[in-house]
Parts: sequence; C-alpha cells; structure tokens
Amino acid sequence: MQKQKNIAIVGSGLVGTLLAIYLKKAGHKVSVYDRSPDIRTIEFSGRSINLAMSDRGWRALEYIGIADEIKEIAIPMEKRAIHIGENPVNFQYYGKEGEAIYSISRGVLNRKMIDMAEGFGVEFFFEQKVWDVTLSTATLHIGETEREEWKDVNFDIVFGADGAFSRVRHRMQRQSMFNYSQEFLSIGYKELNIPATANGDFIIDKNSLHIWPRGEYMLSALPNLDGSFNAILFMPFEGENSFEKLKTTEGVQRFFQEKFPDTIEVMPKLIEDFFKNPTSYLVTMRCFPWTYKDKVALIGDASHAIVPFYGHGMNAGLEDITILNQMMQKYGDDWEMIFKEYEKERKPNADAIAELSYRNFMEMSSDTADENFLLRKKIEKLFSEKYSELWQPLYSMVTFSSDKTYNEALQIGDKQKDIMDQVMQMENISEKWDSLEVENKILELLKTQK
Amino acid sequence: MQKQKNIAIVGSGLVGTLLAIYLKKAGHKVSVYDRSPDIRTIEFSGRSINLAMSDRGWRALEYIGIADEIKEIAIPMEKRAIHIGENPVNFQYYGKEGEAIYSISRGVLNRKMIDMAEGFGVEFFFEQKVWDVTLSTATLHIGETEREEWKDVNFDIVFGADGAFSRVRHRMQRQSMFNYSQEFLSIGYKELNIPATANGDFIIDKNSLHIWPRGEYMLSALPNLDGSFNAILFMPFEGENSFEKLKTTEGVQRFFQEKFPDTIEVMPKLIEDFFKNPTSYLVTMRCFPWTYKDKVALIGDASHAIVPFYGHGMNAGLEDITILNQMMQKYGDDWEMIFKEYEKERKPNADAIAELSYRNFMEMSSDTADENFLLRKKIEKLFSEKYSELWQPLYSMVTFSSDKTYNEALQIGDKQKDIMDQVMQMENISEKWDSLEVENKILELLKTQK
Repeated sequence: MQKQKNIAIVGSGLVGTLLAIYLKKAGHKVSVYDRSPDIRTIEFSGRSINLAMSDRGWRALEYIGIADEIKEIAIPMEKRAIHIGENPVNFQYYGKEGEAIYSISRGVLNRKMIDMAEGFGVEFFFEQKVWDVTLSTATLHIGETEREEWKDVNFDIVFGADGAFSRVRHRMQRQSMFNYSQEFLSIGYKELNIPATANGDFIIDKNSLHIWPRGEYMLSALPNLDGSFNAILFMPFEGENSFEKLKTTEGVQRFFQEKFPDTIEVMPKLIEDFFKNPTSYLVTMRCFPWTYKDKVALIGDASHAIVPFYGHGMNAGLEDITILNQMMQKYGDDWEMIFKEYEKERKPNADAIAELSYRNFMEMSSDTADENFLLRKKIEKLFSEKYSELWQPLYSMVTFSSDKTYNEALQIGDKQKDIMDQVMQMENISEKWDSLEVENKILELLKTQK
Repeated sequence: MQKQKNIAIVGSGLVGTLLAIYLKKAGHKVSVYDRSPDIRTIEFSGRSINLAMSDRGWRALEYIGIADEIKEIAIPMEKRAIHIGENPVNFQYYGKEGEAIYSISRGVLNRKMIDMAEGFGVEFFFEQKVWDVTLSTATLHIGETEREEWKDVNFDIVFGADGAFSRVRHRMQRQSMFNYSQEFLSIGYKELNIPATANGDFIIDKNSLHIWPRGEYMLSALPNLDGSFNAILFMPFEGENSFEKLKTTEGVQRFFQEKFPDTIEVMPKLIEDFFKNPTSYLVTMRCFPWTYKDKVALIGDASHAIVPFYGHGMNAGLEDITILNQMMQKYGDDWEMIFKEYEKERKPNADAIAELSYRNFMEMSSDTADENFLLRKKIEKLFSEKYSELWQPLYSMVTFSSDKTYNEALQIGDKQKDIMDQVMQMENISEKWDSLEVENKILELLKTQK
C-alpha cells in the first residue's frame, strides 16, 4: 500500500473517473473536479462519437473488476460492414472467431463509471472551473470565469485528465523545454442518426461497424443498445465533396441520394440532424513531458489527443492508467520516479497510435472498397492462420493484442507492409494468391528482413 | 497609395519597428506597443546573440533607403575562422570575393531603427503590456498584470510582431483549425565575452565568424564595433559535455583549458561571465494560419521562431516585410487578400529556413572540422566557379541569393547533396577531386537528375 496522498483529478471523463477508482483503491484521498455539470443530470454527454472498446480498454477495467458490469452495456462488433453502391453489404472480419470490438455510448459509460467511483468513495465536484494550476505546489485555481477572483485548493498531486484542450497542460506548456503540437485535419465530422425500427429492432446488421467508403469522405455507423445507430459523416471542410458545399436542404438530399443511396430510407431525420448538429473538428495533439516532478501528471487526451479512425482514443487513455498503475506497484511512494517511468514508457506508444490513427482514415474511407486491398488482406489472413507465431495482422496487434505495445505494432506493421508490397507485385497474384509459391515467398521475405 | 488604416503593431523589436516604417510610409497611422521599457533608455537589450545580417535583410532595409545608415554599424564577416586544437586558424570563405555576412549588435540596431521610425512619425508606447487581443475587432487588451483590469484599444488592423512567445498568436492558437508546434532543442547556450585589447584592437581576426567546433558542442564568436567579440557556448543541457556538468569554477576552468585552450588568454572574465549569464533555451516554433481575416497578422518570430545556426532568424523576419509589402502593392486596399497571399507565399519558406537552421548545427559544430566535408566543399566550389549557372552552393542560395526563396534553396540543396554523396564515393576522390573526371561525373548526374 502506498502512503496516502491527497490527490486531485481535473476532468470527470472516462479516463479521469477510472483513474479516480484506481487511486482510491490504492488508498488515496481522491477529488475529481469538472467544469461541466454532472453528466448524470443532463440529457446529452456533449461528446457523441460512439466508442469502440477493445482489449486494451477492457484490461484496464478488468484489473479493478468492473469489466463484466460494463460489458452489459456494450454491443460486440466482430466485423466491418462495407456498403458500396447498390451491392449487398460486404463483411470484413476484424479478427479471429470470438474476437470483437465493442460499441459503447460514451455518455452511458461515463455515468455508470461515476456512480461506481462514488461507490468506492471518490468525491466529485462539478461545475468547478479550473483555470490554472500552480505546478510547484499542486494547487488548483478555480473560479466562475478566467478573469474573476479564484479560490485556491492545494493538493499533494494533481492529474490533468481534462482532455485535448487541457488547462493543466496549458500551464505546463508555458514552461521551458515543453514540446507541444496541435494539428487539425482538413476533414471534419457531423453526427447523424439511424433510428431503430418501430418495434425496437436494428434496421441494419447489429454486430457490425458499418462503413460507406467513398474515398475522400465516408459515413460510418455504430450500434446503440436501443436499436439505433450513431452515424458519423467524415468529410473535408472544403473542396468538391465537402461541408462547405452542403448548405441547402436540396443539396444535402441530392448528395445522400447520389452518394449513399441505401441510407435514404434508414435516415428519416437526415435533414433535421444535418442542420441541427454542428460540424466538428479533428485534431492530433502531442506533447512532452507529461509530468512535473512528483506533483503533476497529464493522462489520456490531455497528453495525446488523436483522430478517431482506429477507434483507440479511449483505449489508449485507459491503457495509460494500466501503465501508471504498474509504475505505482514498482516504485511505491517515489512519485517522481513513478511519473518519470510512466511518461517514458507511454510517450512512444502514444505517438505510435497517433500515427496509426492518422493513417487509418485512408484505410477506412478508400482501401476497404479496393480490390487489391481486399486481396492483400486475404493473403495476410491465410498466412497468419497457418503461421500465427510469425504473422499477426496489424489491426489485431493494435486491437486484440495483450503482449504488443502500440509502438511495437507500428514497427512490425511497417515491416509487414514492405513484405506485402513485394508479394502484391508477383505476377498473376490475384490467381495464385493462395498458392504455396506465395506462402514460400512470404516465409523467405520474413527471413531476409532485419 | 492605400486607404489610411489605424494600425497597431505589438512588439518594438527589429521586425516590428521596420514594419512600422513601411506602413507609415504607405500612409497609415501606426502605433507600436511594447511590454518592455524603451530599449534606448536601458543598458542592455535583453537579447544577446549578435545578428548576422545578410542579403535578405539588407534588401528589406534598402527598399526604404536605410541600408547605408545601418551598414555603418555593421562589420563584414566574409569567412568562418575555424579553431581546432593547437592548429593555426583555418579560414572557410562564405561566398565569392566581396560577399559577406554582417555582424550587428541587436541592441544598437534596434535603438537606431526606433529613432528612425519616430522620425517618420510612428508612435511608440513602451511598458504597455498587451495580454490579449480580440481578433474580430482588432482590439488590444492592455494592463499592468494578466489578472488586473485592462484597458481596451481598438484598431483597424493589428500585427503581432511580439516574438517567439507571442501573445497575439496565443489568442489565435485557441481558434479551431490553428496548427501549432513548439519544439525545444536539448542544446542550450550561454553568452561569453572576448574583450578588445588595451588599445581597442580586435584580439582575433575581425572579419570572421569564429567557430570552435567540437562535435556535440561548440563555441562561436562575432565581432562588435568596440573591438570585442560576442561569444556563445552552445552545449547540451545534459550528458558527458554539458551545462549540468559545469557547476564549479574549477570545472569550468578545466573544461575550457582542455577543450578550448586558445580561448584562455582572450577570455579573462570567463568564470565571471559563465556564472553571471543565464543558460538559455533554443526553440523552433511553427504555426498556421498567420492571419485572421483582414484584422490580424503575425510576422517575424511570432509566426516562425527558428534556431540560430544559419544566422537567419532576423533575415527571415525582415524578408516577411518585403513579401507583405509586395502583396500591399498588388492588392491595394483588400487586406484580406493581402494577408491570405502573404501567409501562403511565406509559410513554406519559413518552414524551409527552420529546417535548414536545425540541420546547420551539425555543419557548424562537427562538419567544419571534418576532412571529408572540407573536400566536398572544395569540389563544389571548383565546379560552381566554372559552371555558376548550373551550381550555386546551398549556403550562397540561402544567404547571398536575390532570386531563390528559402524553399527553393532547400530543395535544390537536397539534390546537390545527393549528387555530392555519389561523387564522394568515387575511388581515390581525395586525389582526383579537381580532375575532369569528377567534373564530368557531376555534369552527368545533374543531367540525369529530375
């Protein structure tokens, strides 16, 4: 057991709340501050993209014994359902039999976890706006507005789990030697909805992550418990097919009829949703260091906000907690050491999942509709089933792996790509893709590769 | 003539002051705000690295007819003077006969330019701290501290020429779609001094930029008008030869005796300077966009702070003004267009000089002492003298060019490097470096290169 510390967590999102449970169970006094009202008292969470919980996220929940309870509000998605033109839906399985990612509503999950945290004795302070932090004394400065009088609350340790626009990080950013970057995509997103049927059934396949890949833009949909789907249109802000071009009811109607014909009858409130819901931005944020002495640490989106195309933003944040907890086990009361080793272990993996997520837009929006891509996946799958110890597909390493870090997955994935590039250049590959010749070629390339 | 605007410039440094002169001469009402006292009333400028003015800087001064007056306070440096161990100094010329970069004291130059700007009718407001800017109305918020009451001053246009830690940019950074990065080097610097002789002479060669290259660290020195030299030690913060290792008088003395033996007798106040002067950080900052509608624009270090190893921080800032002025000529009163075209033209060149500056630390601290590097330079020089229309060395394109942008120089430089890499692999290159065979090889490689 560690010596009890008085710990503040800024941010009551998923990472902040789970971290609170971990720290409380480790014997500390834990107070969570959030600038928003209690999410349990309001109708919407403010953040809408459904989450895809996968193994790294589950592991963090399992460790403190709440995974089973959360699984009750999750829907397994074992495959991508690809919608192209008038064709029947094409299913692309994510992993082996029994492997799936899980659709969960951010709001539902967050409410449940705050309930649990309170049950464990964590104290929550909502509508408390933290404007600044004094790093050297772990003091929060809280007030109604940025320029009015603040009250100061002192702690032993402060965690910034306050998301991509973290105020805690904002203070650290003004320190010398603090590296920081924020990079916006030229692609934005808009939330839409596919309602359940009149008797509450799912109108398209329940256990799939649905994708309408269209190259520079795409539509996706994840299932909700009530039979509806949370749909997201990802599209450039400017250009030929873009948000700036869709300004009228007729324009939006024509666009969907032409580009996503099979969505017309499943999205009866398309026009209402389209003009009511905001067009949102996508940003990648990187920084280092993540910690200040034994006083302050960033975690989750506050230290590494990524784009959503690998479905790993939350999973990466929850895995931060797993790693932090390992360091707590290892270094006892030496919080400076805990923090140093936590950021050292975690930073390369945060960079790796940022890179993988950025790359995956192309895979989702274009490659899933590409013949060559599908052939490539078939060859990989065949080989990896036969030689599972030699070849685990990248998606599986990232999503279903228990032994590979994000960074290891990225490195191995790049090597696999080199090999597959060469395999795909073999003559008549589309005919002999399942031949011994191709299998031997891969084995040989694996041997010669450093 | 443009329609008169009421313009504020935040920052009275070199870029802010020269910009003020340009805008005043174009017919505008110009007010310059600075948080510091008037530099003409204080003994030191706060910023110490001597500047190396080169052609891009001179051009911005020439256009408004003040270059000749500034040249009077500048010392031409036509070469690097390389100090290695006990060897005599090795001179490496920067360009052709008559080409030089110019050592100028930042403080002296800044004072002179503020005098000139006042002469032209620019108004200066010193010790006025701008804490925030309302972008949509071009309003400055000024006050004694960040949290006390502010007074608001409204303008038609605001320029942020307030340096690497710009407050104006800080506000823009909170806009969506604002890309930003700050990256610190693990190398810091400390200012030292080589005084003039008793009768005011230069104790080492006057018309040189002196370098003591030592691999991971180096010492440099630029001449001042009074016969002294402004010396800078660049060294890692941590590691074998680092600032953290130099904590005692004996340690510093031993380090300089061992590593820079020929500096001992020319730096009599080494120990005093070393412990009195701060160890400073080096940072590269990038951002985009640089402008907000027709209201606000960033310029100089506020939009692109770079490390000093190419001697181009100020030159790039002054060239910003040249380009802005071209857009003013071209687009008249359409300030939104002026700003859009200014940032579009300038951003890739700011990125290019940031990259070149970053790379140049290795050239200065290691390559200048390397046999192969010197041979490479000799071959390049010989070839470029014979075929000046085919080959202008990278340093000359960056520093003495009137027709190539930074980005063009970077691109061409990379191609030249590829060619020289191949030339240096020729057998017995050190013997036949000036042969017709080598010359033909370069000609051939130039032809086959895209």
